[in-house]
Parts: sequence; structure tokens; C-alpha cells
Amino acid sequence: MKRRSFLIKSAGVGLASVAAAPAVAQTAQKVKWRMSAGWPKNLDAIYGSAENMCKRIGQLTEGKFQIDVFQTGEIVPYSQNMDAVSNGTVECNHVLSTAFIGKNPALAFDTGLSFGMNARQHYSWLHYGGGMDLLREMYAKSNIVNFACGNVGVQMGGWFRKEIKSLADFKGLKMRIGGIGGMVLLKMGAIAQQIAPGDIYASLEKGTIDAAEWIGPYDDEKLGLNKVAPYYYTPGWFEGSAALTSMVNKAAWEKLPDTFKIAFETASNEQYMACLAHYDALNPKALRELIAQGAKLSLFPKDVMEAAYQASQALWDELAGKNADFAKIYPQWKAYQKDQAAWFRVAESPLDNFTFRQLNKDQ
Amino acid sequence: MKRRSFLIKSAGVGLASVAAAPAVAQTAQKVKWRMSAGWPKNLDAIYGSAENMCKRIGQLTEGKFQIDVFQTGEIVPYSQNMDAVSNGTVECNHVLSTAFIGKNPALAFDTGLSFGMNARQHYSWLHYGGGMDLLREMYAKSNIVNFACGNVGVQMGGWFRKEIKSLADFKGLKMRIGGIGGMVLLKMGAIAQQIAPGDIYASLEKGTIDAAEWIGPYDDEKLGLNKVAPYYYTPGWFEGSAALTSMVNKAAWEKLPDTFKIAFETASNEQYMACLAHYDALNPKALRELIAQGAKLSLFPKDVMEAAYQASQALWDELAGKNADFAKIYPQWKAYQKDQAAWFRVAESPLDNFTFRQLNKDQ
Repeated sequence: MKRRSFLIKSAGVGLASVAAAPAVAQTAQKVKWRMSAGWPKNLDAIYGSAENMCKRIGQLTEGKFQIDVFQTGEIVPYSQNMDAVSNGTVECNHVLSTAFIGKNPALAFDTGLSFGMNARQHYSWLHYGGGMDLLREMYAKSNIVNFACGNVGVQMGGWFRKEIKSLADFKGLKMRIGGIGGMVLLKMGAIAQQIAPGDIYASLEKGTIDAAEWIGPYDDEKLGLNKVAPYYYTPGWFEGSAALTSMVNKAAWEKLPDTFKIAFETASNEQYMACLAHYDALNPKALRELIAQGAKLSLFPKDVMEAAYQASQALWDELAGKNADFAKIYPQWKAYQKDQAAWFRVAESPLDNFTFRQLNKDQ
Repeated sequence: MKRRSFLIKSAGVGLASVAAAPAVAQTAQKVKWRMSAGWPKNLDAIYGSAENMCKRIGQLTEGKFQIDVFQTGEIVPYSQNMDAVSNGTVECNHVLSTAFIGKNPALAFDTGLSFGMNARQHYSWLHYGGGMDLLREMYAKSNIVNFACGNVGVQMGGWFRKEIKSLADFKGLKMRIGGIGGMVLLKMGAIAQQIAPGDIYASLEKGTIDAAEWIGPYDDEKLGLNKVAPYYYTPGWFEGSAALTSMVNKAAWEKLPDTFKIAFETASNEQYMACLAHYDALNPKALRELIAQGAKLSLFPKDVMEAAYQASQALWDELAGKNADFAKIYPQWKAYQKDQAAWFRVAESPLDNFTFRQLNKDQ
């Protein structure tokens, strides 16, 4: 009851601020929005990316389009962030869409699927491969206009209490994991669990869970999981890259002057790469520190990777068989990914692999 | 003589349009600039990226900051694009800085060095690793403020009339190549030549040169080089990625209202990824078509890659020994690259390599 009245009140405030703006002189209009981020402030890279985006929008509009960022739980809990935008409680959010696959598994195409496209390929699919049109069509049914406003890159594969020697070690393994990767894990015989970040450490320490994935070295370091689960596996195949989304309430969006729409879209596009590049700047040092503190870094065994890949493909086929959005997006997405993979194997990957190997020898 | 008087006249026009703007009401001010692109219009991806950037700047400023793009040769030939910005003939350009290494080899850090950072790492170095500050300091001496406004990714290694079986085949090889890669080739015993794009086909056909690198499949296809030099080698190690630069005349920049500066910077950052993603969308199909037309795609032999890598490292040491800018930037850049390589080997590359291999098997 309390929750409901709060939602209604917030919605009123949000819409009023838009409706009050004069429709005539667009350039003189002032708009104030709220962005509900899915992160606490201490996840400073990802939360900071939301702040940087809103700061940029302010700069581009001479302060006339002001968006205040709220950390997770301040307005709604993470799980209600999509509803909050749909119903106008807030004008926009800053989330990983994969958190809402319970509503519609096809939302996973927005964040990225397991063994999906990398961050650069995903941007290409969205903006030059028809991906954004497909996602917008899906989101429109929820009264939302979506923007890809960041990416954290390939995540780490998580912290494990015991060494993973082969696929057999995944049978019955209780792992804290978010998003569509959890559905893949189930197919591999493991047990996926949803646990709030603040409870991961204690759950691993007590042995309530055997493993937990969080994000990458920079964010993982803050949770101190290496002390209770020293085996640090890579790569985080759960998402080929994890793109961040800002969902915007459709009615609020349509009331914006064109210049503000452009400012929002441009700042979002800018943050896609900025967020990724910032993580790339932060992760190397954090990884070194984690290793110095006892983290045992290993690649997942080959049979684990192969089983996860096969389980993923089987899952996509199943989901395409029972969800219309998934059925529509999947073949188009898959064809684009195959093209990208073929192309990256020709120029990018051979040079990356050669150069990285040489630099490693030089060290 | 004609050239000189044209330059002076252009400079006058450019500066007048800025000086005439009122200093008081920044939002009412209108500014019109010229951007001299290093490309003909028919290189539509790269030229289009310059146009998209300027279009975005227009949209962000409600048409008040208008930048018209001119194709190569319309205002000045490519080789004079840096001088043209330095002396105010044009307010800005759209180029690969590596074209101007004759003035200062350290300009190569802006486009990217042979076996240098990939497109994503380069952006991280620029914006989160101190790279932009180092480049700005260097450019300031030429009266220029620089922006990274695009990237074409790893290029192809070029078209060869004969098969390259080993490093020995590079001895005496006459190759058309731009940028710092030409200096590396010299160390490998080859002969680097500068030939205008329009003359590459005839030079290969006649045998005046043995090989030529241009850009990547999409742009290469337009030159039809597969008909006269069927061996298509990869990867283009000459630059780990090739970042595009917009150099801006410092005086013109300083006269801009803050909002226009922000619009320019944001549109430039947006295009960095947009240009790259657009090329990724275009290259796969072009490569397939080239192969269908007879291009014989091969990886450079291992000894060629290793010799090119060693020659590159030797060249950087030499250049650092005789050029103050190179000496200042190189150690900082190299340390950042090593960190990035170590990090990419942990998460990004293992997942990319695994996924690309699997997708290739599936096809």
C-alpha cells in the first residue's frame, strides 16, 4: 500500500515537470528528469557513467535539460526499474536489461546473450545492423524508448570456493549469477541463485553458495570475494559483452524538444564507449591487486566452455520456439553475429592475438 | 603563387566569420566553419563520418554552429591539411595524423603505431590514460587542438602481385604504404612508396610496384586491386587501429562559446565508435565479394609478422632517441599498452577467440 501511494506520487511529480514546460519556445523550455540507476554510488565506474551522461546532457543544453541520478533503492528497488519507467514513476533508468528477462527473455538481446557479440560488434548491430529498430519495437509495447548508454565489456567468470577441473564440477554447483547466464547454468546441471550484492560475501563464507559472479576485477575487488572463494575463473561467457541501457518513458520522451532528444541520444552514444574505456583503464590494476591478495586466476576448462556454448544455443532455440519477440530478433541477430565473427577472425583477432602475445613475452 | 593567395583569402574568410559573432549572448551566436576532409566523397564511410559529425554538431546547437565538409583537394591537398589548420586557412580538418609524420613522427601516436593498441584500448588511453593530454601538448605547438573522431579498426595488410611465402619475399619489394608502417617496411628491406589512390591500380598493373595497402575490404573493393594483385594479406599490422583526427585551429577554438565546444567534443567522441561500427557493418560483405572475385586471402607468414614487430620496436627506440615528443609519449604509451594487453588476454580475447571459432564451425 505504502509502495503504491509512493509510486503514484512520484509519477505525478515526474509528469508535471514535463507538462509545465512551455510548448512554444523550445529553446527556453526547462525540463527536469529523474534517472533511477540500478547501482549504488560506490560502484563508481558504472554509477559514474550514468552521472557523466546526465552531466553531458546538461552541458549540451546549457543546463536546461537537467537529469538527476538516484542510486538503487532510492526511488525503487532494482527489480522495479523497468516498471517504474513504463508507468512514469521516473522518466528514465540506467540498468542492465537482462535483469528483467523474467518479463520477457528477449530483453536479453539488449544487454547481450551468452557467447554473444562483443561490445564493438553489439554497437554495430544496434546502430548499423537493424538491432536498435528491433529492440525499440519490443520496448514500445512497454511504453519505453531504449538507449544503449554503456558497456562493461566481457566480465569475469566468477569466484569459486573450489577448483573447477571439468564440467562434472558444475553438477549441483550453487552459483550466484544474474541474467540469462543463470538459465544456461541450469541446463548445465548447476543451480543458479539470485543474491543481492551485499549478501554474496556471507553466502560464500558460510557455503550457502559455491560460487558467485559479479562484474569484473575493478568492481569485484570491492566485495573482497577472493578471501572466501579464491578461484577466479575467466572468461565471463554469460554475456559476450554487457551493454547498459537507459530506458525512457515514451510519453516523457515524446514531450521533449528535438534538441533535448538529440542531446540525450548523443550523450548516450558517447557513454557507450566511454564507460567501456573507463573500465579498461581500471581493471588491469585491480586484477593485479586481486592476484597479489591470493586470487587464483584460471581459464574455465575447455569442456565447461563447450557445454556452456551448446547449452546456450539450445536455450536460444527453445526461447525462439515460445516467445514471439525472441523468434523475431534471434535469426537476424545470429546472422549478424556470424558475419561479425567471420570478419573479426580476418583482421582484428589475428593482430590482437599476435600483439598481446608479443607484449607478454616482452614483459 | 596562386596557391598562396588562395590560402590567405581563405584564412580571412574563416577568421572573420568567428570574429563577427557577438561575445555577449552566447546562445544567439552563429558560427560557420569549414572542415577540410582528407577523403574524396566516394570513400563514403570515412567521408560520411565527417559529415555525420558535423550534422550532429548542427543538431545539437539548433543549427547555430554549422560546419561544412569539403572533400580532399577542394580547399587544400591532403598533405597540406595540417598546415591549413595551423595557419587558419580552415578552422578544422578530418584526417589520419600519420600522414604528417614527416613534420613530427610523434604524430603517429594519434593515429596509432604499428602493433599498437586496438581501437578500444586507444580510446581508453586517450581519455582515461593521459594520452589526450600528451597529444594536446604536442599539437599546441602547431596552434592546434586535436580530437579523436573516428577509427577504421585494423586494416588489411594489402594487395600483393605475388605470394608472400616468407620474410625473404619482402627484400626489395616495392610497396605503396602510408604512415609510419612505411618506415617499418624500410627496416625490413622493402621499399615504401607514396602513391595517390587513383594511381595504385595502374602502378600494380604495370608492375611499377609489387604491392599496395589501402584500407579495408569496403574501401579496397572500390579500387578493384584484386584484378591486378590477387594476394590479399592480413592483418594490417601497420597500425593496431587507425584513429581519425579532427585538428582544430586553436584561435578559432578559443573563440567558440562553451556550448559549441561541448557539442564539437561530444559529436567527435560519438563518431569514434560510430565510424568503427559502420566499417564493421560494411566490411564482411565486401570481403566476401572480393573473395568471390578472385582475391586470395591469407595471413602474413609468422616470420614476416615477427620481423615487422621487431623492426617496429627498434624504430620506436630510434625515434625516442632523436625526437623529444616521441621520447615523452612513448614510455607512457607503451606502459599503457602492456597493461591493456595483459588485461585483454584475461577476458576479452579468450571469449572472442572461443566464440568466433565456434561460430565458424557452425557455419
